[in-house]
Amino acid sequence: MSVPDDERIARAVLLRVTEPAVPGVVHHVRSVGPQQAVEDIRRGAPIGRIDVEALTLRVLDASGERDLEAADRLGARLVCPGDEEWPPALSDLDHHHADCLGLWVRGPLSLRESCEQAVAIVGTRAATDYGLTIAADLGVGLAERGWTVVSGLAFGIDAAAHRGALAADGATIAVLACGVDVAYPRAHRPLYDQVAATGLAVSEHPPGAAPQRARFLVRNRLIAALSAGTVVVEAAPRSGARSTARHAGELFRQVMAVPGPITSTLSAGCHQLLRDRPDTVLVTKTDEVLEQVGALGEFAERVSGPVRRRDLLGPTVSRVLDAVPVMKRAPVSRIALTAGMTVDAVAAALAALAVQGLVEAEGDQWGMTTLGRRERRADSTPDAGAELPLGWW
Amino acid sequence: MSVPDDERIARAVLLRVTEPAVPGVVHHVRSVGPQQAVEDIRRGAPIGRIDVEALTLRVLDASGERDLEAADRLGARLVCPGDEEWPPALSDLDHHHADCLGLWVRGPLSLRESCEQAVAIVGTRAATDYGLTIAADLGVGLAERGWTVVSGLAFGIDAAAHRGALAADGATIAVLACGVDVAYPRAHRPLYDQVAATGLAVSEHPPGAAPQRARFLVRNRLIAALSAGTVVVEAAPRSGARSTARHAGELFRQVMAVPGPITSTLSAGCHQLLRDRPDTVLVTKTDEVLEQVGALGEFAERVSGPVRRRDLLGPTVSRVLDAVPVMKRAPVSRIALTAGMTVDAVAAALAALAVQGLVEAEGDQWGMTTLGRRERRADSTPDAGAELPLGWW
Repeated sequence: MSVPDDERIARAVLLRVTEPAVPGVVHHVRSVGPQQAVEDIRRGAPIGRIDVEALTLRVLDASGERDLEAADRLGARLVCPGDEEWPPALSDLDHHHADCLGLWVRGPLSLRESCEQAVAIVGTRAATDYGLTIAADLGVGLAERGWTVVSGLAFGIDAAAHRGALAADGATIAVLACGVDVAYPRAHRPLYDQVAATGLAVSEHPPGAAPQRARFLVRNRLIAALSAGTVVVEAAPRSGARSTARHAGELFRQVMAVPGPITSTLSAGCHQLLRDRPDTVLVTKTDEVLEQVGALGEFAERVSGPVRRRDLLGPTVSRVLDAVPVMKRAPVSRIALTAGMTVDAVAAALAALAVQGLVEAEGDQWGMTTLGRRERRADSTPDAGAELPLGWW
Repeated sequence: MSVPDDERIARAVLLRVTEPAVPGVVHHVRSVGPQQAVEDIRRGAPIGRIDVEALTLRVLDASGERDLEAADRLGARLVCPGDEEWPPALSDLDHHHADCLGLWVRGPLSLRESCEQAVAIVGTRAATDYGLTIAADLGVGLAERGWTVVSGLAFGIDAAAHRGALAADGATIAVLACGVDVAYPRAHRPLYDQVAATGLAVSEHPPGAAPQRARFLVRNRLIAALSAGTVVVEAAPRSGARSTARHAGELFRQVMAVPGPITSTLSAGCHQLLRDRPDTVLVTKTDEVLEQVGALGEFAERVSGPVRRRDLLGPTVSRVLDAVPVMKRAPVSRIALTAGMTVDAVAAALAALAVQGLVEAEGDQWGMTTLGRRERRADSTPDAGAELPLGWW
């Protein structure tokens, strides 16, 4: 399965003449296809609110064939939507996050396969020893469990994560903000070589392209999209790692953050994330990361089998279902106690369960419907906390 | 407002002959009142599944008057439910958490007034310098803002918190697992003297009672109940501080935890709390603590004025209401994007809002009802994130 040559050439041209994630271009390609989009640029047709004149000037110098040949000489390739190597995960990049028009890829792995179980580890360039140790440990731990480590080849956390994966002979993907033949930062040339030799270097930018400030931020959405979850190890408030985490959350990937001393400004970004985004999960070791992203995989698998209503509930609502008495009824406050959750969260979850016909209220007392009893797993046991003897702790 | 002498004497007897939080006793007092309960113990009447014989033997030696006189000589008093000084917060101790039958109190403050704005700071005895510094800083910060610092006078975090409050000339309450005249641990005699001289030492145990292992755990529910929120600063997994946090959560107090290095076993309990209990909030400074407990106060005030539906929603559901388009409709995924929350949480919240008639769905598209539009604050503005230009970050 592979896209036609003329489409690949057109995509190469588009990646050469326009920056990734320009909404007008992305939208236009979506509407008319890559070949027509290149054609429209060539003849200066209006495309959204874009300065087409600049694009038209650039397209005169652009040659998709030339870029593809150059890539070929480097041992690189252009992976396009429709190619067998294209990771389905990238199709989650919707209009809001800007479609990826194609990815230049260098390295011996299959992009698609190596993204099937991938976690991003990101963080500050100015990392402390604490952060570097954690990033490397997580890189090793994930690699040892067969997970690919995705990061950005930057100084600090990124490099430590890549190195951890490499040290464990694992797969690692460096998502670059420059051409796949450009080792940036320069001091990371040896690291880049190692990644490209055993893992993958990938980029939306054509061969030879230089890194630019804005490109790093646009690049971050790819790091998030290629991974089942993003772990922020150390980050100053308002850092790029936080932008990656935001993308991850918006793309319904797991967002995780490693805590640290509150006296460290480089953990402040992680703490802020844990405070600001209710879906961010605090993680302290590889197992906890895998618990998050593994659950996602398990979920994905489960829904491809016979789908039970319960499978679609999500962990919070499911936990509340477990706390609803099977034969008797109980008020929200009691169910909250059993579930170990706030009344607010439980009330919301109960309403969701009621909408699905799994529970029902009589006055302020909630109980199971017949359907609910059927859906409830036979092996589920009530929360142990509810069965502790009262009074003595 | 003050309870009759014979009731106070009966409560003094009960606190002398039985351990606090024995479910049978608590339940019996609830049913027949303290005087009758003492009478029943004296004549050996069966009380639940309790070994009444032991109680009956102890009651022979007990004298409520004697304990009240001893307390008087110490400058202490017995505060009972019904007394003006009784803090309403203690009435939240329901059957599940075991009523408090009365509190011996020593110190110049009004227990009721000093609990109106109180935060508990708890943690491990074997604290690190990191934990001690944070506990002391929080103690100072809370005291400076006029909040009372509640803790347990133990080594480590407790003592640092009390000392912080004292250093800022603030109010601090030590909840003891022994008589209010017993300074335990002994090395904290000077600290105890300072607390009793300017703040309050309180206990369910009669004057002279010795600390016992089980008493610390039972005591923890009082620390939680007397405070609007509990901050765990450093805690080993399975520590007493975690039991206080659990009580706080079950009593619908705010549960907060301070993160630390993942390499520190004494922060592991805090991290576990943040992972296990979805209602635990990560805090790193006084302002963040006050943001949590202040909101509670604000909420409590608001509902005593004209109640709007919205006021009862809780922060999560309220945030989702803000993210629902006012005039158009949107799917759950879009609303989740705007709210920056998971689809799961948003779906649950939408169901709760639908039950209240504030939003409605047409197919999978959610929008406001007329009622919802009316309830939505005039001054509310949509999440800024939704208005960012797309594509460029």
